[in-house]
Amino acid sequence: MNRIYNFSAGPSMLPLPVLEKAAAELVCYGESGMSVMEMSHRSPDYEAIIQDAEAMLRRLMNIPDNYKVLFLQGGASTQFAAVPMNLIKRTGKADYAVSGQFSGKAFKEAQKLGYDVKCIATTKEDNFDHVPTITKDMIRPDAAYLHICFNNTIYGTKYPEIPDTGDVPLVADLSSCIISEPVDVSRFGVIYAGAQKNMAPAGLTLVIVREDLLDYAEEKIPTMLEWKTMAENGSMYNTPPCYTIYMAKLVYEWILSIGGLDVMKEMNVKKAALLYDYLDSQDYYIAPVKKESRSMMNVTFVTGDADLDKKFASEAGKAGLKNLKGHRSVGGMRASIYNAMPYEGVEALVAFMKDFAAKNPKN
Amino acid sequence: MNRIYNFSAGPSMLPLPVLEKAAAELVCYGESGMSVMEMSHRSPDYEAIIQDAEAMLRRLMNIPDNYKVLFLQGGASTQFAAVPMNLIKRTGKADYAVSGQFSGKAFKEAQKLGYDVKCIATTKEDNFDHVPTITKDMIRPDAAYLHICFNNTIYGTKYPEIPDTGDVPLVADLSSCIISEPVDVSRFGVIYAGAQKNMAPAGLTLVIVREDLLDYAEEKIPTMLEWKTMAENGSMYNTPPCYTIYMAKLVYEWILSIGGLDVMKEMNVKKAALLYDYLDSQDYYIAPVKKESRSMMNVTFVTGDADLDKKFASEAGKAGLKNLKGHRSVGGMRASIYNAMPYEGVEALVAFMKDFAAKNPKN
Repeated sequence: MNRIYNFSAGPSMLPLPVLEKAAAELVCYGESGMSVMEMSHRSPDYEAIIQDAEAMLRRLMNIPDNYKVLFLQGGASTQFAAVPMNLIKRTGKADYAVSGQFSGKAFKEAQKLGYDVKCIATTKEDNFDHVPTITKDMIRPDAAYLHICFNNTIYGTKYPEIPDTGDVPLVADLSSCIISEPVDVSRFGVIYAGAQKNMAPAGLTLVIVREDLLDYAEEKIPTMLEWKTMAENGSMYNTPPCYTIYMAKLVYEWILSIGGLDVMKEMNVKKAALLYDYLDSQDYYIAPVKKESRSMMNVTFVTGDADLDKKFASEAGKAGLKNLKGHRSVGGMRASIYNAMPYEGVEALVAFMKDFAAKNPKN
Repeated sequence: MNRIYNFSAGPSMLPLPVLEKAAAELVCYGESGMSVMEMSHRSPDYEAIIQDAEAMLRRLMNIPDNYKVLFLQGGASTQFAAVPMNLIKRTGKADYAVSGQFSGKAFKEAQKLGYDVKCIATTKEDNFDHVPTITKDMIRPDAAYLHICFNNTIYGTKYPEIPDTGDVPLVADLSSCIISEPVDVSRFGVIYAGAQKNMAPAGLTLVIVREDLLDYAEEKIPTMLEWKTMAENGSMYNTPPCYTIYMAKLVYEWILSIGGLDVMKEMNVKKAALLYDYLDSQDYYIAPVKKESRSMMNVTFVTGDADLDKKFASEAGKAGLKNLKGHRSVGGMRASIYNAMPYEGVEALVAFMKDFAAKNPKN
């Protein structure tokens, strides 16, 4: 068993103690006589698991009492449709900021569904090398919400601050930065996130929604997309993705055990600094993202030579540093250094980068 | 580690060799250096897994080439909306047979979404103690499809034969009987099933759809509910529930290893016969379902005394026979004896039933 450093953007690394615990209790969970995978979602054993998961997440993120926590399926992509379907009736129109591929998809989905939506800001013309600056006056005061993607996995950018949207609820996709650092939940109307980057295996979608926003769903919304139905049924309107929720619980437990999100942030800041400081100290690799928009989770860089980029990803893979190839739509390299990536993984990456640069001089 | 017999209706037992294999390779899969849970869904290692899963299922169910196999999220409940949204444009109206709670929910969801749907048959007035007889002349010739639930988990009923729907495509929820016996896929337009009863942990939904039915989706269907989008992207329009698909693959592999669905059916017939033969041989317990509608997977029975029923479920649980309580909406007892329930489990149940009857005479 030779574990490698996996820089995948998602699904991605999980903490080794979490995997080991899951393996140890996979066949038989505690005194239950069965696997968590086999438990009725209505059984006391399982109810304890999902309740613990929610309680731990609330503690971890300091989620205010007037927010519901939903454990859903379908990925952030399903929320691209669910967001307007659940909120549009608030005022009839909604605003979007487009800072990369996924926020673009969210905007297009709302358009496809026929809603009155407006893109109020985008950095597309700059190839998304930074996030747009959003000020209150840019947002339509009668927008049902402003939608943003807080951390852009593909481009490696992140909003340096939570935009001030005034009275307009802020709806944010946090898929690739959730529980990487403390965040003031009360600044958001809705937070959603696919679990497969920083929280659990793929197949779980987290929605955190302010209670007063549960009353604006379309009549013709598919029941399974309606947050209110899910909230009223404690995420158990139908069978939830039970095992993946259990895995999320183990991850929350692990973060709490090391000191919560303050400590997690400290560790993530240190890892990201190691990599960005190296990038800033040399000129073999170029970090395309503007400094104020840099993501702490996804670090993108290029050599400036597509063939060298390819060689880099391939040789890094052979050296046990996997999945460093950038997203197929942008090329170059991307190191996703989520919570579960150890500091040693980033050290190994920087050492490899130095070695590669020395051995592969540019013309 | 003391595994018990788990008669849960879903999530439910998984084959022990499958759980043991999953546990053994949970932390590190083969030479990959990572868990399957951590693999990028775009990586060669994972692509091999999902392709194997589909190939094995095709072999197991003998799925014709003109059917697409989709690995989705959201449960059968999401398909209650997806079915009309994907098919209604074929003719503009659709027919439903209501044989229990889930087929009733499917019908109501289509109504809620505003479609022209008709219930052509129901056995509600008989408390769903049998399935309706469906003949071709009952179906509107211009229906986009006829929807049925093939096996009714809650009531313990099943259609004895696939209804002949003529030229109208048959759409069937097979959640609680999929891969329990061979079935002629070519008789269906669409088969769908939540995985958590006979196939995998919760969080995976299987859709098998005839290719010519992929062109009738509504314009305003959420992209994630559109079968065609999923088919064109090999179930990877977004990140699929990777680990649950891997678990399904292990289950398919296990069934193939013991001889495929013919052998599986033989085993299931034998298990169900043991229980039904006992029920028919005595008069302490009553099996409410009419013989020709009996399910091979979910066996319901009552003592006729609610207090005794309660005592039965409670004492059985203490004896290591768990989750025998009937669905909260119907009461009594239900033994779900899916593929993974060993013959010995049903033997133990029958022995317990005899013992309980002897010790608890009715007044």
